[in-house]
Amino acid sequence: MNYPSGIKKSIVKEKEPRNFKNLGMNLESDINSTNEYYINKEIAYIYKKPTPIKLVKVDYKKGEIKEAYFEKPSTTDYNGIYHGKYIDFEAKETINSKGFPLSNIHKHQISHIRNIVKEKGICFLIVRFTKINETYLLMAKDFIDFIDNNKKSVIPITFFKEIGYQIKEKFIPRVDYLEIISKMEEENGKEKEKSIKWRWTGKSKT
Amino acid sequence: MNYPSGIKKSIVKEKEPRNFKNLGMNLESDINSTNEYYINKEIAYIYKKPTPIKLVKVDYKKGEIKEAYFEKPSTTDYNGIYHGKYIDFEAKETINSKGFPLSNIHKHQISHIRNIVKEKGICFLIVRFTKINETYLLMAKDFIDFIDNNKKSVIPITFFKEIGYQIKEKFIPRVDYLEIISKMEEENGKEKEKSIKWRWTGKSKT
Repeated sequence: MNYPSGIKKSIVKEKEPRNFKNLGMNLESDINSTNEYYINKEIAYIYKKPTPIKLVKVDYKKGEIKEAYFEKPSTTDYNGIYHGKYIDFEAKETINSKGFPLSNIHKHQISHIRNIVKEKGICFLIVRFTKINETYLLMAKDFIDFIDNNKKSVIPITFFKEIGYQIKEKFIPRVDYLEIISKMEEENGKEKEKSIKWRWTGKSKT
Repeated sequence: MNYPSGIKKSIVKEKEPRNFKNLGMNLESDINSTNEYYINKEIAYIYKKPTPIKLVKVDYKKGEIKEAYFEKPSTTDYNGIYHGKYIDFEAKETINSKGFPLSNIHKHQISHIRNIVKEKGICFLIVRFTKINETYLLMAKDFIDFIDNNKKSVIPITFFKEIGYQIKEKFIPRVDYLEIISKMEEENGKEKEKSIKWRWTGKSKT
């Protein structure tokens, strides 16, 4: 990084090593505040699921858990409704700036994502490459395509740049992922209306 | 209950006190097996959310939770996708045979249900009255209507019988709640197609 003359590197480092804009925010808190914005504006209702925990010792009388372990998640972090539709995504940060290591997503989560795609839910990943501070949305079908057609253990960042959509950070809402989804839904909607028009006006679709 | 002559009452009692049909099954396991059936038949993808737990003492190195408490749920038990749509419900058993005590549903759960109705998700309650072994589906909008227009702390069973839909127990799937939802969706779909037809053929809707 090049610092303007007169600014001491050490002072900058103390304040915020990564980026002035971020002020200690991470992807999770950015998404949580974005979801709050969506709820308040009645744009969508999307929320974080509880962390799955395996209980071992429980005092049910006191409602106290004495021994338990974190379970590997079998679903994704967030889900909810957008225009009546099911929406679901996983959010991950990686310090790897060349790509996204697939070890971040568990086997059961991949089954979950496949089920959602099959049942026509809106599903995607949000991945932030923290070193370059870029955040991408990758649709689940493209993610599954990659897994099914590659033996690589890392999805290269070029794949996110070419097939995914960059989410530019804003002040409010922080990570406006629904901006991307709404454009896609608009296009899908137009296609559907066209096909119904064809049907009703007796024109056959070619 | 009348026992055939020769069968000792005590033996029957030991085996299954409630109902021969149930064989120890409760509403939760009935719903879980129903959801498995829906996934296998690719009818819908509906799953149980993890139980929300408040962590107090955690050994993050070992991934061991040493002290934690059950939190009051802020959402519902089940959610998922049905024909691309968001579907969400809470399932409850009650031994009260006159009605369903509202104390079974927490304040935050009611907000959650309101949010879903607002965002046009499919949302309902499944309530089993265990003493009479009858199970009802009550749509969220009717549930919210009751809460907003009554000061009662119990929803009388007559409300379920008149406004709700009885789910008759089957062998497979056990509680086929989507049978009811699919009929509703069919009706809604017909209404929507009609309105699009009106628009495209230039007929104004009266």
